[in-house]
Amino acid sequence: MKKSLGAKTIVYPTPVFIVGTYDENEEPDVMAAAWGGISCSNPPCVSISLQKHRYTLKNINERKAFTISIPSEGYVSEADYFGIVSGKDENKFEKTGLTPVKSELVDAPYVEEFPLVLECKAINTLDLGMHVQITGEILDVKLDESAATDTGKPDIEKIKPFTYDPAAISYRAIGKNLGKAFNLGMKFK
Amino acid sequence: MKKSLGAKTIVYPTPVFIVGTYDENEEPDVMAAAWGGISCSNPPCVSISLQKHRYTLKNINERKAFTISIPSEGYVSEADYFGIVSGKDENKFEKTGLTPVKSELVDAPYVEEFPLVLECKAINTLDLGMHVQITGEILDVKLDESAATDTGKPDIEKIKPFTYDPAAISYRAIGKNLGKAFNLGMKFK
Repeated sequence: MKKSLGAKTIVYPTPVFIVGTYDENEEPDVMAAAWGGISCSNPPCVSISLQKHRYTLKNINERKAFTISIPSEGYVSEADYFGIVSGKDENKFEKTGLTPVKSELVDAPYVEEFPLVLECKAINTLDLGMHVQITGEILDVKLDESAATDTGKPDIEKIKPFTYDPAAISYRAIGKNLGKAFNLGMKFK
Repeated sequence: MKKSLGAKTIVYPTPVFIVGTYDENEEPDVMAAAWGGISCSNPPCVSISLQKHRYTLKNINERKAFTISIPSEGYVSEADYFGIVSGKDENKFEKTGLTPVKSELVDAPYVEEFPLVLECKAINTLDLGMHVQITGEILDVKLDESAATDTGKPDIEKIKPFTYDPAAISYRAIGKNLGKAFNLGMKFK
């Protein structure tokens, strides 16, 4: 038996994207965004949604560029902090001791200590109400060597990404392997 | 040291959204979509991206409605199957034995056995290339009573959602609680 919860933004899983931009003073800033996801395979695109008052939105509108850094479990407190304060008020890199690296491909910084990074060129803006959705073309994905498999692919057990639970307002680790995609379901075919 | 992987659609976590629609013959269909996420808080919206040839895209364009059902771990094979075959060719509800339920709010079916359901009215279409992004306003979220906390909220440990790993082409469970959001980061403030 299902019960109505009302019109809410509850779905699983939601990501913890750390969005990197430069402000008008060339200062690197980062914020945490849970509203977003991949939006196209070719060209590869990712969409993120930002509240209209966000410093990051202003920065993206000016530079047409952003990065997404994926934090490991060990940096959950830093990632949470990035979602609590505004870059207008605090230098979040200085406060956390994390290191901004200037992308060579887009006019935006990423977080050196985070194992996976997407470098994006903003290509579309969609005003949906409280949030503006920015779609970025992914120009490159960069991976720490320490988070790669033997064949150089991203290894989720080394990256240790985590997810945001919008009902419990908490973070959850990624768990056990449930099996191969495009394979488990073949038995029903 | 970070290495370039090229322009790819790799990010963590990505969801496994089971998108429900009716076709022109009133047959319920479902497909699995990993490209998508929440896109606005008010009005509450979710965006999903579908390849242009998808049966589901045709159905959404005609009915302006879809649902998203979130499968539990125990249904990972069924969810995988929904992403393997097209509703043009097979009746996926019949093959899996799962039960379509007609939404009372939108002209689309959801999966009775899956614990969390979003009922959506399609409000925007964005052509990005290989994929078309559909944004839906979430008119209601429905939760199985068996997947609720004592206070009636969604309980991620009972829902048991899972995530798609686009690098390993596999599914992963959700893991341990890492702590409260908007709280862990306060120590840096």
